[in-house]
Amino acid sequence: MTALATGTGGVGSCFISQLTWLSKNLPSTRLSLCYISMIDKALYRPDYAEIDFDTALFTLEATGVEPPPISTIVEYLAAAPHNVILVDNTSAISLAEAYPAFLRRGISIITPNKKAFSGSYQLWQEIFSSATSGGSYFYHESSVGAGLPIISTLKDLVQTGDEITRIEGVFSGTMSHLFNKFAPTSGSGGKWSNIVREAKELGFTEPDPRDDLNGLDVARKLTILGRLAGLPIESPASFPVESLIPAALENVANADEFLRSLSKYDNEMEEKKLAAERSGKVVRFVGSVDMLGKKAKVGLEWVDQTNPIANLKGSDNIISFYTKRYGDMPLSIRGAGAGGPVTAMGVTGDLLKVLCQLR
Amino acid sequence: MTALATGTGGVGSCFISQLTWLSKNLPSTRLSLCYISMIDKALYRPDYAEIDFDTALFTLEATGVEPPPISTIVEYLAAAPHNVILVDNTSAISLAEAYPAFLRRGISIITPNKKAFSGSYQLWQEIFSSATSGGSYFYHESSVGAGLPIISTLKDLVQTGDEITRIEGVFSGTMSHLFNKFAPTSGSGGKWSNIVREAKELGFTEPDPRDDLNGLDVARKLTILGRLAGLPIESPASFPVESLIPAALENVANADEFLRSLSKYDNEMEEKKLAAERSGKVVRFVGSVDMLGKKAKVGLEWVDQTNPIANLKGSDNIISFYTKRYGDMPLSIRGAGAGGPVTAMGVTGDLLKVLCQLR
Repeated sequence: MTALATGTGGVGSCFISQLTWLSKNLPSTRLSLCYISMIDKALYRPDYAEIDFDTALFTLEATGVEPPPISTIVEYLAAAPHNVILVDNTSAISLAEAYPAFLRRGISIITPNKKAFSGSYQLWQEIFSSATSGGSYFYHESSVGAGLPIISTLKDLVQTGDEITRIEGVFSGTMSHLFNKFAPTSGSGGKWSNIVREAKELGFTEPDPRDDLNGLDVARKLTILGRLAGLPIESPASFPVESLIPAALENVANADEFLRSLSKYDNEMEEKKLAAERSGKVVRFVGSVDMLGKKAKVGLEWVDQTNPIANLKGSDNIISFYTKRYGDMPLSIRGAGAGGPVTAMGVTGDLLKVLCQLR
Repeated sequence: MTALATGTGGVGSCFISQLTWLSKNLPSTRLSLCYISMIDKALYRPDYAEIDFDTALFTLEATGVEPPPISTIVEYLAAAPHNVILVDNTSAISLAEAYPAFLRRGISIITPNKKAFSGSYQLWQEIFSSATSGGSYFYHESSVGAGLPIISTLKDLVQTGDEITRIEGVFSGTMSHLFNKFAPTSGSGGKWSNIVREAKELGFTEPDPRDDLNGLDVARKLTILGRLAGLPIESPASFPVESLIPAALENVANADEFLRSLSKYDNEMEEKKLAAERSGKVVRFVGSVDMLGKKAKVGLEWVDQTNPIANLKGSDNIISFYTKRYGDMPLSIRGAGAGGPVTAMGVTGDLLKVLCQLR
């Protein structure tokens, strides 16, 4: 029997429904739920009584109490009579920073949250040492590319002794969508500010599109992959990240005002697109880690029309690993890198991996 | 401590060198070697004394004895004082058929060998039931796409409750090479018989290219994937497989005579290429499983010029999973699907997965 603690929300609620599926279809997993919380409510019992998967969200909403401080959650979970896995489906930095405290007490962690793994290098090292001392596990497949097998593949390459020479790709579904529309390989594409506005209206961007356009999300993902490949990247702020927010619009009050003003910069973006086209290329928002030169960067790049990066569709991500064994032709993984069900799938896949090891 | 038994050969020797790397860089794996064999020699000791990784191949060559019958190997390994994993880097059907006997006795199996998993459906079922009764594990990542994470990804999709609707791709490095040269997306390509001859000379085909052109290798891989996705495919012979061997050349005496005669059929292949081109498509050798229609097939298909399948380079494989969660845009994995070091990497990656569970 393994007890779970989890958050709710977009990914969290998909995860709960996948747990329900697991408990019916893979009963040998023997999972129970002993703690569940949302931003202002938590559900847990001193006797660790099982919370029913099917009705967890409803019961939490109806009978939840104020969430306890994190230190209390650590003590509660550490004293449970079973193995415990904390499934952090929140994006709370306070919880992310407490991972070492959980891991040291033998509580394994699974999360799609990028924050802990792309924070300071010191936190990264503490996570590893705490898991070792606590005999616990941590998995975060969905922190890059959602359910795509990016992190597990990179770990396999490294742990079997391959040498990563370069990692590159399109790591943001939003950026993929914007540039596939703005600079398609055939046809002329649309106006930059229109495409950004439409993407926001369709729900393809963050509530404020600047949170996508600043490139930080891509920088965080690249930090995680670079570190796993062996480069001690200090933080997502320690390498060049090109922001697509015009300097004058960085501090405008809100998303609406930003979107109204963005059209003034359409000519500038159009010129970047045409410059690439004059060289027979297309412009894309690319992240890369050059392992040999020990450098990471994020920003606009000119890409050959035949490069798979140029030929993405929709909001697809693509991540390519160049390695010594694979030579000139990379191992590439492509597909949706965002969305509740596929992100939750990465979390559930990690759960099955931890369960195999906790038995 | 976990003891290994393994074969040698192209993949086997790369695997041994990866083991040497592991023992130096991940000493916590605590691996030892207690049985190693080649076609006509075997090395093992009644007291299970450790065979040194570094010198294993040399010692086997110099002091190996005649390999014992498989039933003796089962008894020898089952009586070992440690957990034992049989790493079958051979392509021997006799060994593949004995997997249930090993698994029932608690001996886990890792192999890149397709034969056991694409043989009769009865053998497939026996492998599963024997592992359950023996408490043992079996992994075969490299049986499809070499080290590419194909099988692990498919298992994750299925085990987390996604529904596979379609699997399609280019599963043969040889076929990929031949068609990328024969019908490139730009330019006119070469003559079919010349391309086949050159590929053989470069070592890109089996010694007799008919062993690639008959499509059986692709059919075997598709059988494995279809079964893992939930389709009880009876055998690789139970669905349509298009052979590219002209009927009149199926029984010619040898590869040289086959290659000399193949040019008589160049016009026929050229016509197939042009027919696709007239529709704005390119011809490729594709395998697919339609999970909804419960049908598998292997053969020539017309593919859109923008389809990633049309734009492969070199000998790359590509495998796409269409699922309920991923919708219209598949999860795709692309890269080298053959070669000693990447095939061995899949085997070594499996080894690390079994070790996590045997601890």
